[in-house]
Amino acid sequence: MIGRLNHVAIAVRNIEAASAIYRGALGATVTAPTPQPDHGVTVVFVELPNTKIEFLEPLGENSPIAKFLEKNPDGGIHHVCYEVDDILAARDRLKAEGARVLGSGDPKIGAHGKPVLFLHPKDFLGTLVELEQA
Amino acid sequence: MIGRLNHVAIAVRNIEAASAIYRGALGATVTAPTPQPDHGVTVVFVELPNTKIEFLEPLGENSPIAKFLEKNPDGGIHHVCYEVDDILAARDRLKAEGARVLGSGDPKIGAHGKPVLFLHPKDFLGTLVELEQA
Repeated sequence: MIGRLNHVAIAVRNIEAASAIYRGALGATVTAPTPQPDHGVTVVFVELPNTKIEFLEPLGENSPIAKFLEKNPDGGIHHVCYEVDDILAARDRLKAEGARVLGSGDPKIGAHGKPVLFLHPKDFLGTLVELEQA
Repeated sequence: MIGRLNHVAIAVRNIEAASAIYRGALGATVTAPTPQPDHGVTVVFVELPNTKIEFLEPLGENSPIAKFLEKNPDGGIHHVCYEVDDILAARDRLKAEGARVLGSGDPKIGAHGKPVLFLHPKDFLGTLVELEQA
């Protein structure tokens, strides 16, 4: 069912400092920061040949990553995102398998403009999993 | 400098149970467990079209992931691994940038039979980074 690894998301306190580390020490190609007020984050992509790393910096109040950064003040890997061909079929299969889909269970439009769902970390090896319609 | 994302490693308590979750609910292709006594882990790969996820289960005493699993009893993402063309040049560049290379600084032969180095999480956004010679 799952296809490509779309991205690995790393929550960071300071997205400019994070970008400088990946551009400098690791010599990577890093995009300019893009504020996404609807998602409560500012986003940067590290473009790798086969996938991307996404930096997330809290934006505004009630950012969904604020609590994570309180627990992980240095930052840390927040989630992995796998692509699926049919997000509704994926959701139904997961529910039938007893996995918990977060929120209402209806896909929302994610940071890339495509329908996404998040799965409960307790059901997936302590790892928050995002599914994105390919 | 960094190239492909070689893998994302997830530390797990029970690699058979982890494999069943990814084969079942997520419908992924998962390899058979391979004990690697020299590295203190048993390893499984989830094969995705563009990269792989690596499950690590502790093997024997003094497993390098035992402490991580004490802190993260459900499991969790342990590290990300980026490929580099020249691991010695990469090390020298990182040291010049002030980044901490773990251990002696000399590459060791990793779980895939290639030279690897690990970088200090405090210097890389709270994320343990492995570099592997491509």
